[in-house]
Amino acid sequence: MSGSPVERPGLLALAGVPSERIAAWLDRAETFLAGGDAPRADFGGQAPLAGRIVAHLFMEDSTRTRLAFEVATMRLGGRVIAATAAGSSISKGESLLDTARNLAAMGVDAIVVRTAASGGAAQIAQRLDVPVVNGGDGRHEHPTQALLDLLTLRRAMGSLKGVRVGIVGDIANSRVARSDVHGLRALGAEPVLIGPPTLVPRTLSGLATATGGPPIEIEHDFDRVLPSLGAVVMLRMQRERAAADAVAADYPKGYRLNRERAAKMPDRAPILHPGPVNRGYEIEPEVADDPRRSLVLRQVGHGVAVRMAVLESMLSA
Amino acid sequence: MSGSPVERPGLLALAGVPSERIAAWLDRAETFLAGGDAPRADFGGQAPLAGRIVAHLFMEDSTRTRLAFEVATMRLGGRVIAATAAGSSISKGESLLDTARNLAAMGVDAIVVRTAASGGAAQIAQRLDVPVVNGGDGRHEHPTQALLDLLTLRRAMGSLKGVRVGIVGDIANSRVARSDVHGLRALGAEPVLIGPPTLVPRTLSGLATATGGPPIEIEHDFDRVLPSLGAVVMLRMQRERAAADAVAADYPKGYRLNRERAAKMPDRAPILHPGPVNRGYEIEPEVADDPRRSLVLRQVGHGVAVRMAVLESMLSA
Amino acid sequence: MSGSPVERPGLLALAGVPSERIAAWLDRAETFLAGGDAPRADFGGQAPLAGRIVAHLFMEDSTRTRLAFEVATMRLGGRVIAATAAGSSISKGESLLDTARNLAAMGVDAIVVRTAASGGAAQIAQRLDVPVVNGGDGRHEHPTQALLDLLTLRRAMGSLKGVRVGIVGDIANSRVARSDVHGLRALGAEPVLIGPPTLVPRTLSGLATATGGPPIEIEHDFDRVLPSLGAVVMLRMQRERAAADAVAADYPKGYRLNRERAAKMPDRAPILHPGPVNRGYEIEPEVADDPRRSLVLRQVGHGVAVRMAVLESMLSA
Repeated sequence: MSGSPVERPGLLALAGVPSERIAAWLDRAETFLAGGDAPRADFGGQAPLAGRIVAHLFMEDSTRTRLAFEVATMRLGGRVIAATAAGSSISKGESLLDTARNLAAMGVDAIVVRTAASGGAAQIAQRLDVPVVNGGDGRHEHPTQALLDLLTLRRAMGSLKGVRVGIVGDIANSRVARSDVHGLRALGAEPVLIGPPTLVPRTLSGLATATGGPPIEIEHDFDRVLPSLGAVVMLRMQRERAAADAVAADYPKGYRLNRERAAKMPDRAPILHPGPVNRGYEIEPEVADDPRRSLVLRQVGHGVAVRMAVLESMLSA
Repeated sequence: MSGSPVERPGLLALAGVPSERIAAWLDRAETFLAGGDAPRADFGGQAPLAGRIVAHLFMEDSTRTRLAFEVATMRLGGRVIAATAAGSSISKGESLLDTARNLAAMGVDAIVVRTAASGGAAQIAQRLDVPVVNGGDGRHEHPTQALLDLLTLRRAMGSLKGVRVGIVGDIANSRVARSDVHGLRALGAEPVLIGPPTLVPRTLSGLATATGGPPIEIEHDFDRVLPSLGAVVMLRMQRERAAADAVAADYPKGYRLNRERAAKMPDRAPILHPGPVNRGYEIEPEVADDPRRSLVLRQVGHGVAVRMAVLESMLSA
Repeated sequence: MSGSPVERPGLLALAGVPSERIAAWLDRAETFLAGGDAPRADFGGQAPLAGRIVAHLFMEDSTRTRLAFEVATMRLGGRVIAATAAGSSISKGESLLDTARNLAAMGVDAIVVRTAASGGAAQIAQRLDVPVVNGGDGRHEHPTQALLDLLTLRRAMGSLKGVRVGIVGDIANSRVARSDVHGLRALGAEPVLIGPPTLVPRTLSGLATATGGPPIEIEHDFDRVLPSLGAVVMLRMQRERAAADAVAADYPKGYRLNRERAAKMPDRAPILHPGPVNRGYEIEPEVADDPRRSLVLRQVGHGVAVRMAVLESMLSA
């Protein structure tokens, strides 16, 4: 699971990706945004992905991530084929690799993989010559989601150097949290993992030690740590998961971001959420929709821009 | 629910749209047809929608409408993304707006909406800056279907001025009938609503008064009114609906368009149907397939042409 | 079911197609491959299918065939619309023709049909003016699959003249076998149908007599005939089918291609399989994945190339 995008094209994880590489993607994404919040880039005849085909191999449904990759590919002049037709024989495990192998044999130029299997994207990348982009694999990583979080934070705050960024929710099961931790660390920010002990066990402090970082700060008392945070990323509670059930009733009491809690943070400290939002559960509607603080919709447009940067860097000639 | 396409791009309803605007769309659609019945326009490098992305947000399935919008977008050089993947979490009400908001945040250039909620398209258009095209919303309107009916009638008859056009079926539940009424009135035709009292209550005569028109003629006796009609639009009976069930057994006796009834109309009076046809129920197969009278398949090709005209008028620079 | 591609564009069956026409498609497919195993052709502004729309009308799911046609169309610069949305009202029989009629009315440039009804593709082609490509119809034919088999064999062996090619499995139910027989005969090879009497009845020897050929050799003893074969096409056992059930337990004993059997064939005799492979049932994993013998993945890339050749020959101006 090395998969550094420096060694071969593809993006499997943010763990181990040099900060210069991350910054270069964010810089390129900024040029696509051109001052707005969604890319309008139109390259006409010189489109970077003209004649290129990006295959989507989504074993889990994800309207948002899928559409963002699709729009990104189209804006770059490329085309998308979707391997995961409803009703197809594609299901799990072995067949993910088999389908990817067939796509590669057909000569597609890249594969975006979404799978419930942690490490599933790397498994494909190791056996095929085609560039693979991880669109979320189990509890492992969701690197392009982290890139869009980074872009949104950087645009809102300038530099992330020394900024304490709270990540709040079911960290143990979150691939977004894992990728955020690696990306934030790479850009000099200090991630703080926040949630009840069942969802944020002490063992998670070792999350980034594989890439040489110090232990990550773990906090169970959201209210106490709020004033020190420069920004928060509120995760979506996957209520269908068992671990979540155990704490479902108590969670909002201690961790829902409501107006009182938002007021404890520094003025204008950005609030992020990968969506879709469980309104009224992990975040109050008034906070999620507050135009001064919430960057949730900007994240969506930025998600197209960073995916354009990643796809362009690995596919343009 | 004003949504006049003159004030802002988008097409939510035909009610209130000036006749000049409707005629301009039909004129442009004619140029796409170039003498045939389906558009073959190929703009090459100067395609009006080159680099543009049209999002489809279909909460109800509609193979015909969806494909016609897709072909129209492609013929203009644009691209389509479909937000309504099977098995997605998109369902109803609030999530329609949420998904539309996400599509807008991704920077798509227009959204085509199909929903079971009357007024659903306008609800989105009022809250987002992106042009919205109503692909059918509940019992409210289906404006592009009416435009294709108008184009088909105009091509068959020359002018619609003073032509009595019967609309036959479950008018109370029909968005097609509502849009047809407004469009026919705008072009000087006289719509006549035909069906049993349960499906065509007297109150429907007030349908177009909101836009300043006189009451609409209501007729329960199809046979009596037939000789006076210059054309008929036979609606599809939605047999799954409760109101339809009540009259299901009796309906064909009084309202099925069979050869005898077709013979009572003026020679070559056009017969339209939005499809898919319930063969043998609301219309006899021999009538639906009569090449001298039935324009059902021409409507399909014209549906691509009018959607090209509408999309081009709101999206080309 | 004449449908010769010389008389009208379209490809319904290989039966009756002149060998020159087949060879021309294979030659053109070779140029797309340009020495590799998957086409990378990019025509830029002069793309042969620029502005063309190919409709997919797949009544049976087929990830592999569908994707190969889609990649082929995209590589030629064309666009694809899929008429078979999940959850659509499209089902069987009459509605296949109705949907095709609507697609033709919309002005699509070709229709690729996949159906469980033998003769379903020809049924559409006879009634519509649009070119139809048979993507597999019941037990009848799957002509583009045969073309890719021919291309793979020709690239591996040079000429197919006089080469004995075993086709092994449930021949009675196989459209692939039927198309292969006609294609192999056209190029001078000698197909040998192999399997137990329940799956390969003697009556199958008359398969190609309609096109003027001599009876086809039938063999029930795979081991005996193996040394004489220049290549084998192993079919996928459709285990859901009744005929297969009857022999399911015994089949591998007599017909699974394992290492011992593969060793009885001439050195480097190619092994083909249309996929997806029932690993361990009709073929041993070690044989299916043997890079010296198995051409299974190359077939996939060649499948894109031959479909490009077919689509280009019928759609480019």
